[in-house]
Amino acid sequence: MKYFFLLLVSYLIISFGFIQISDDSKSISWEEKFREIPKASNLDEYMKILSARPHHLGSEYDKENAEWILTKFKEWGLDAHIETFDVLFPTPKERLVEMISPTKFTAKLQEPTLKEDPTSSQKDKQLPTYNAYSIDGDVTSEAVYVNYGIPSDYEYLERLGISVEGKIVIARYGASWRGIKPKVAAEHGAIGCLLYSDPKDDGYYQGDAYPKGPWHTADAVQRGSVIDAPQYAGDPLTPGTGSTKDAKRLKLDEVKVFTKIPVLPISYNDALPILSSLEGPVAPENWRGALAITYHIGSGPAKVHLKVSSDWDMKTLYDVIAQIPGTEFPDEWIIRGNHHDAWVNGALDPISGLVVLLEEARSLGDLLKQGWKPKRTIIFCAWDGEEEGLLGSTEWVEKHADELSKKATIYINTDGTGRGYIGVSGSHSLEHFINGVTKDITDPETGLTIWKRKQLHDISNAKTSDDKNKIRQQEDFKIGALGTGSDYTAFLDFLGIASLNMGFGGEGGYGVYHSIYDDYYWYKNFGDPDFEYCKTLAQTIGTAIIRFDDAGTIPYKFVNLSSAIKSYLDDIKKSLETMREKTIETNKEIDEGIFEAIADPRDYSLSAPKREDVPPYLNFAPLENAITHLEASAKICDDLINIFSESGKTVPEEINKKLIQTERRLILPEGLPERSWYKHQIYAPGFYTGYGVKTLPAVRESIELKQWNDADKNIVTVAKVIEDFSNYLDSISNELKSNTK
Amino acid sequence: MKYFFLLLVSYLIISFGFIQISDDSKSISWEEKFREIPKASNLDEYMKILSARPHHLGSEYDKENAEWILTKFKEWGLDAHIETFDVLFPTPKERLVEMISPTKFTAKLQEPTLKEDPTSSQKDKQLPTYNAYSIDGDVTSEAVYVNYGIPSDYEYLERLGISVEGKIVIARYGASWRGIKPKVAAEHGAIGCLLYSDPKDDGYYQGDAYPKGPWHTADAVQRGSVIDAPQYAGDPLTPGTGSTKDAKRLKLDEVKVFTKIPVLPISYNDALPILSSLEGPVAPENWRGALAITYHIGSGPAKVHLKVSSDWDMKTLYDVIAQIPGTEFPDEWIIRGNHHDAWVNGALDPISGLVVLLEEARSLGDLLKQGWKPKRTIIFCAWDGEEEGLLGSTEWVEKHADELSKKATIYINTDGTGRGYIGVSGSHSLEHFINGVTKDITDPETGLTIWKRKQLHDISNAKTSDDKNKIRQQEDFKIGALGTGSDYTAFLDFLGIASLNMGFGGEGGYGVYHSIYDDYYWYKNFGDPDFEYCKTLAQTIGTAIIRFDDAGTIPYKFVNLSSAIKSYLDDIKKSLETMREKTIETNKEIDEGIFEAIADPRDYSLSAPKREDVPPYLNFAPLENAITHLEASAKICDDLINIFSESGKTVPEEINKKLIQTERRLILPEGLPERSWYKHQIYAPGFYTGYGVKTLPAVRESIELKQWNDADKNIVTVAKVIEDFSNYLDSISNELKSNTK
Repeated sequence: MKYFFLLLVSYLIISFGFIQISDDSKSISWEEKFREIPKASNLDEYMKILSARPHHLGSEYDKENAEWILTKFKEWGLDAHIETFDVLFPTPKERLVEMISPTKFTAKLQEPTLKEDPTSSQKDKQLPTYNAYSIDGDVTSEAVYVNYGIPSDYEYLERLGISVEGKIVIARYGASWRGIKPKVAAEHGAIGCLLYSDPKDDGYYQGDAYPKGPWHTADAVQRGSVIDAPQYAGDPLTPGTGSTKDAKRLKLDEVKVFTKIPVLPISYNDALPILSSLEGPVAPENWRGALAITYHIGSGPAKVHLKVSSDWDMKTLYDVIAQIPGTEFPDEWIIRGNHHDAWVNGALDPISGLVVLLEEARSLGDLLKQGWKPKRTIIFCAWDGEEEGLLGSTEWVEKHADELSKKATIYINTDGTGRGYIGVSGSHSLEHFINGVTKDITDPETGLTIWKRKQLHDISNAKTSDDKNKIRQQEDFKIGALGTGSDYTAFLDFLGIASLNMGFGGEGGYGVYHSIYDDYYWYKNFGDPDFEYCKTLAQTIGTAIIRFDDAGTIPYKFVNLSSAIKSYLDDIKKSLETMREKTIETNKEIDEGIFEAIADPRDYSLSAPKREDVPPYLNFAPLENAITHLEASAKICDDLINIFSESGKTVPEEINKKLIQTERRLILPEGLPERSWYKHQIYAPGFYTGYGVKTLPAVRESIELKQWNDADKNIVTVAKVIEDFSNYLDSISNELKSNTK
Repeated sequence: MKYFFLLLVSYLIISFGFIQISDDSKSISWEEKFREIPKASNLDEYMKILSARPHHLGSEYDKENAEWILTKFKEWGLDAHIETFDVLFPTPKERLVEMISPTKFTAKLQEPTLKEDPTSSQKDKQLPTYNAYSIDGDVTSEAVYVNYGIPSDYEYLERLGISVEGKIVIARYGASWRGIKPKVAAEHGAIGCLLYSDPKDDGYYQGDAYPKGPWHTADAVQRGSVIDAPQYAGDPLTPGTGSTKDAKRLKLDEVKVFTKIPVLPISYNDALPILSSLEGPVAPENWRGALAITYHIGSGPAKVHLKVSSDWDMKTLYDVIAQIPGTEFPDEWIIRGNHHDAWVNGALDPISGLVVLLEEARSLGDLLKQGWKPKRTIIFCAWDGEEEGLLGSTEWVEKHADELSKKATIYINTDGTGRGYIGVSGSHSLEHFINGVTKDITDPETGLTIWKRKQLHDISNAKTSDDKNKIRQQEDFKIGALGTGSDYTAFLDFLGIASLNMGFGGEGGYGVYHSIYDDYYWYKNFGDPDFEYCKTLAQTIGTAIIRFDDAGTIPYKFVNLSSAIKSYLDDIKKSLETMREKTIETNKEIDEGIFEAIADPRDYSLSAPKREDVPPYLNFAPLENAITHLEASAKICDDLINIFSESGKTVPEEINKKLIQTERRLILPEGLPERSWYKHQIYAPGFYTGYGVKTLPAVRESIELKQWNDADKNIVTVAKVIEDFSNYLDSISNELKSNTK
């Protein structure tokens, strides 16, 4: 009924010419042809093969997968090869968690085979549950429950008079990237760290546990790297350079990014005896999980023995690289990547994203056979060693940095996909472009465009009528900013290459992350069972590649960027004002004696927070002026590019070359304060959030850390970057103007 | 240290005359003398005796307690007697809950003896777990989980396409008064209702379960009445008249306030097998409790058999009434009450409040011996049959309605008390008075006044700086409005007697409500172990009685009332505006097809809500004009009374007689729409909230139920009440003016 109605409307529109068909019929035609090619059955088939066995970095099947991918690329007519790097990847030797008092308990640290799930039985090939790059250690102490183990949790503990000094903390997964938890614990003096998956966050509280539903089981464990990712990505031994055979390497004891204390992830079944043996204050409401216990904080009386050691070996990683050379502008590169390694069988993460990439490659191969001639060079990358710390992509980017800096126009990443709504984060110069693409792709469940379905979902989720109306009125949906956690990191943060990260999600659940249960059986039941969204993602990204390739002018749009940057500054100013108000209020409450007045002498009570100086007013004028300049420059540049595009003309190659360099102007060679590898001045992973992004990071983080002098200095630095960027746009505009005459 | 500092400050203030000592030294002196008398050890002793055995209405110990109280009143020199009434009180004959599929399970329906808790073993005297005034029934059907079972929960079910027609609903306690749950379930066609206590609301999620902590255990059950309390209070057979021996009684089948379907309360241990056997949609986040399961809604496949029957017998209730006759104005009555019956041993509810009342009575008896001569008549009431439906207080009020209407100046109620912060609800004409009292009472834990401690706590809890500053600036804390749920109801709602309900709370927890574990052992460990707050409450209310008694002018203050009424109207207007905006927005989303767009074809999804007409603008002008009049009249009247008070003069008796009648002017003889027993036009229990108050109920509820014509009419009716009230104040002011000349 609905389809019929839509068909009828389409017929009327076409018959009576209600819409204007674009003149650029050639590219639409290749796009349309492309979208007919991807097949759900292929995606299913690739996944079955690639997730058939555990395929972590260094494993037999990891290499076999790489070779299989290479064969496929070649079979589809692409020019493909494998690049290898040698990287440090510790694997577990000893793992022990036991409670030695008040009762004895030894953690299983094992994920059981489920009869329904055929690959869950591949015990001898599975990497045990552990956190990579935890240091070796053997510690015994009282346990303290620290909630998510983020900085604010420790502020709360301090007000309760509970110290983790010399203690073993037990933190639940969630709210920050896992590597932040042992980092912050160690900063507070803890000597060990257990991470567990609370059923509140991704278990039975959310929905039925696997295999009845998609959520995590009592014994499932989230593996994962705990390297200090916000310092630098890639092989810990070769920051900033490719870890080729003969690369100069740090010695193990020179590496600063390992944890400072031993860490191990455990299931909630293994955590339960410890958590239920804690006493001390009852955890506040936002610390409570969904276990059937009263959550106490401790410390103790539960006393825990934690022992971890690893083989600190080098492993070879296998990046599979395939290219379709450009016929007009071979030195303008469109790069598309997804990793192929997994923690175990990894069906959703990463294979669901990789099969999409493969089907795009096959379909473009098919187009080539049909006579399509891409103007630019298209490069497909199946990365290895992502899970450990984006090793494969980072080492490749570092090795090819000079060439990439010159040639890369866009990097499009995926890392797995599900069902529901299109999600996009990335460089805001690409916001308008990717919005345009999503307006031409059909959602398989509703028949709407994926743009429209996302818009309606966003309206539904927005809290106020104002927010809803804003979404209704905006031409482009806002894309998120990128932190880290996947392979775009080196492209965007190290080199300043405009990047996108995409996928579908929002329907179904996902509680098997980094466990043995993220496998084909799970994905066929709870991921994207008929692979229709995988197919749609291939159609989306393939369309993006073809359209980007075909564009006369590199399709960046800078008003989207200026608008995003403006909103980040507004947000920072608002945060600072909130900090000011909060500090004034808290100081007032300290003076009034509120905290003593509300203390319960028969219970644990919070002491008053520390009195703090009221944050000063900062001089945001340099940034405000720079952004005002940017807004004007962006508008002019966009308008001029538009004139070119609408006239069907192609800008001179040297202008596109300059456009390619725009995002590069947002990085500073010296990087961010205290972490020179991260060079982008608009986006970075948070120093204390991990994956989570901090926009205008130098400014925002100095304010959050109350380093006012640094904040003043960083405002000027970032303002300068934006001024220079604006001047650069102006110079492009001038060239464009002289070309339009 | 802190105490020493406070003493020092007091010394300086007194020595240097920083504050002016009131001239009214006589009354301060009696108040001060009074406050020295209450003894924590007495309170402890009374509780030990009164909660020693189960003492529900109709039980042997209920009568013995009444007689013991009578003896005590007399021993302390009060003129006391017992008044009896004969009331309908059904007690359980048969109780059965069993799951018959998919697995078999028979609910225990028993609260086990705990070895730590001596009175928990009194099995043969305990009233079984049940809900009084549930009809008899024997039903079998699929179960549906309905969250709290309030109207909005059924709207959600409707959008999921789940009907409870012919089903047995299982609802958790909380969010509304229990009697509302079977009422709403029956309105939606359910044939049976189970009520259970989820650990999220008052069990291990909140804190340690009894006897380690104060929260409910796996097998504890909340008993309670499920009569349709918002219709009328008191004996269901004699609405509006005292149920004396020869009163005219309704026949059982004429009674409209019994439930329409059988109801039984169960523990979470008994609920768990049923809840975990439900399938269908996963309950949304705000429906999920703290059991270690995925909450599904059903219906079924769990199929439940529920059987309940009662002995529908008459019982005799024993109200114990004691009085101290007034020496100057014996026909101006100050009434103080707390019930003495309990569901089982009832230490917190009601004995902790009753012992406070008793100690006030003893202390006033002591003052009498010291020569104190109260001007007005003071009446102490220990009510029976409160738990079933405020039977003892309501029948007494109905019987003595004429005399009470003429003479009652104030009714002060308690119903149990704990530790922490003073809580006061009641008539806003008493707001200023009770604020004044609390400014003179010392909090036992902090040495602050209880007013100050409450203020600091309120500041701490307020969400915004604006809200905090408002609290900082207000002279009087805002008292709550009264719904129902305790013995003030007939005084306030049926007769319009200015009332207060008070108690301490906010520290510790209370998870044993209406179970066998609300007993002396519990109270000594988790209630108010050293009875210091009980003592403080006796000091507070005793001070209130003495001060009210001694006042030259009845100490009502009307600007507090006008300000409260104004805020209620503002609130109603805001709610209507929110309804308008929400309806417009929802209709827009329906038109946009949002609900179809976000439906997940692989999961249960919400259908679009029903399209509704946008609420009209209503003519609030009559109410606005009336309140404007009231504000002016209140100010003038208060100012004139103030002139009298400050001059130390007593107003003529006829003016006090008129003041006594002010609250009476807020009732209408015909009562509220559809429920004539409830006559107060400012406060009433919500028709669909039960205990929860609805202010300006006729107006508010017609708007909430979208009965726009009724709303228009009710605005005029209530405006007229407020106009008449204002005119009445004006007439008092005129008399006061002529007396000041």
